[in-house]
Amino acid sequence: MKNMEKIEILPQRLVSWAKWFVKQHVSHGDICVDATVGNGFDTLFLAECVGSEGKVYGFDIQQSALNNTKKLLIEAGLLDRVYLFHDSHSHLGTYLSNSTVKAVMFNLGYLPRGDHTLITKPETTIQALKAALPLLTTNGIITVVSYRGHPGAIEEYNSVKVFLSEINSKKYRVFCIDILNQEHLPPVLFVVHRYR
Amino acid sequence: MKNMEKIEILPQRLVSWAKWFVKQHVSHGDICVDATVGNGFDTLFLAECVGSEGKVYGFDIQQSALNNTKKLLIEAGLLDRVYLFHDSHSHLGTYLSNSTVKAVMFNLGYLPRGDHTLITKPETTIQALKAALPLLTTNGIITVVSYRGHPGAIEEYNSVKVFLSEINSKKYRVFCIDILNQEHLPPVLFVVHRYR
Repeated sequence: MKNMEKIEILPQRLVSWAKWFVKQHVSHGDICVDATVGNGFDTLFLAECVGSEGKVYGFDIQQSALNNTKKLLIEAGLLDRVYLFHDSHSHLGTYLSNSTVKAVMFNLGYLPRGDHTLITKPETTIQALKAALPLLTTNGIITVVSYRGHPGAIEEYNSVKVFLSEINSKKYRVFCIDILNQEHLPPVLFVVHRYR
Repeated sequence: MKNMEKIEILPQRLVSWAKWFVKQHVSHGDICVDATVGNGFDTLFLAECVGSEGKVYGFDIQQSALNNTKKLLIEAGLLDRVYLFHDSHSHLGTYLSNSTVKAVMFNLGYLPRGDHTLITKPETTIQALKAALPLLTTNGIITVVSYRGHPGAIEEYNSVKVFLSEINSKKYRVFCIDILNQEHLPPVLFVVHRYR
C-alpha cells in the first residue's frame, strides 16, 4: 500500500476518487494510458505516478488538447516519459501490447474550456474500452468518469454501463460509484479491476 | 490518515469496503454504533477501532444475535467498551445524544446462520437511518450494506436508496457503490458522510 496522504478520503469529486484508485495500483516503472488527454491534468498525474522509468501514452483527437497537455508537462519537467498521439482512443490498441498496462484513465464528455459540441461518443468510447481491457496487467485498473449532464451524455453513460455490466466476471470486477443526493445529475465513476 | 495495511483495496466484498471507510474515519476514543449486531463481526471490528477509551453501542431484536456477539467480544477481551441492547435499531436515538457518534454501521437482511425469515424491514430501517443522521459528528459516516437477493430485499433496498437520495446535500454526501458484472444481484454499499 502506497502513500495516501495526498488525496482526501470520500472526496466530493469523483475525479479525485479515480485518481485515488489509480494511485493505489500504479508503481514507478509502470505503463499507463490517458485515453482522454483533454487539458492534461490526468496525464500529468499519471506521469508523476509512473516515475522516470515509467511510460504514459496519451490520446486525443483535438490538437489543441495535445498542445495544452504538452505545455503542462514541459512546465512540470515530465514530458520525457509521456507519448502523445493525435488519434482517437478507439485506436489505442495499435500502440500498445496486451497485458502491459497498469492503469487506463477515461474522463468522458467535452474538453473543458474547449468546444462543448465536440464530445466523446458511445461507439468510439465502447471501442476504446474494448481495446483497453486486454491491455491490463493482473491488478491493473481502468477508471471511467462518465457524465450525465450535457446533450448526448446520458446515451454514452448508458452504453458504458451496459457494456461494463457484461464483461467477464472471472477476470474483471466492475465497480460503479455514484453520488445520490444531488439536484443535478453528477458524474458516475466506473472502476474496472483485473483481479486475475 | 491511519494505517490502511489491513484491508485490501478494491476488495470483492462490499462489507470490506464498509469496514475500510469506517477505519479511515474512526479514532481511538470515538463513539460508534452497530445498528444490526447480527453475529457480532462489525461490533468486534468497531470495538477494535475505538480502542479502550471509546464506546460501541450495538442493537439487535434477536437475543441469540446478542448472545453470539457477547461471546465473541468476551473471547477477544473487548466487551469492556461495548453496550448491547435488545431493541430495534429504530430506537437507537433514545440511547445516544446528537452529534456524538463517529460511525454507524448497518448490515441489513437476515441473521446469517439464523432464521432467514426474520429480516430487517423498510419502515424500521428508514426510522433507524432517520435516528442515526443527527447522531453523526462532522466527518462522521454511516455505512449501509443493502441486499437484493432474499424475498423482501429489493423493496428495502429501494426504500433506502430513495430515502438517502433525498437527504440534505448541504450537510451530508451520499455515495452508492455497486458491483456491476455479476450474474446474481450482489449487495450495494451506501456511505453517508457528514461533511459539514
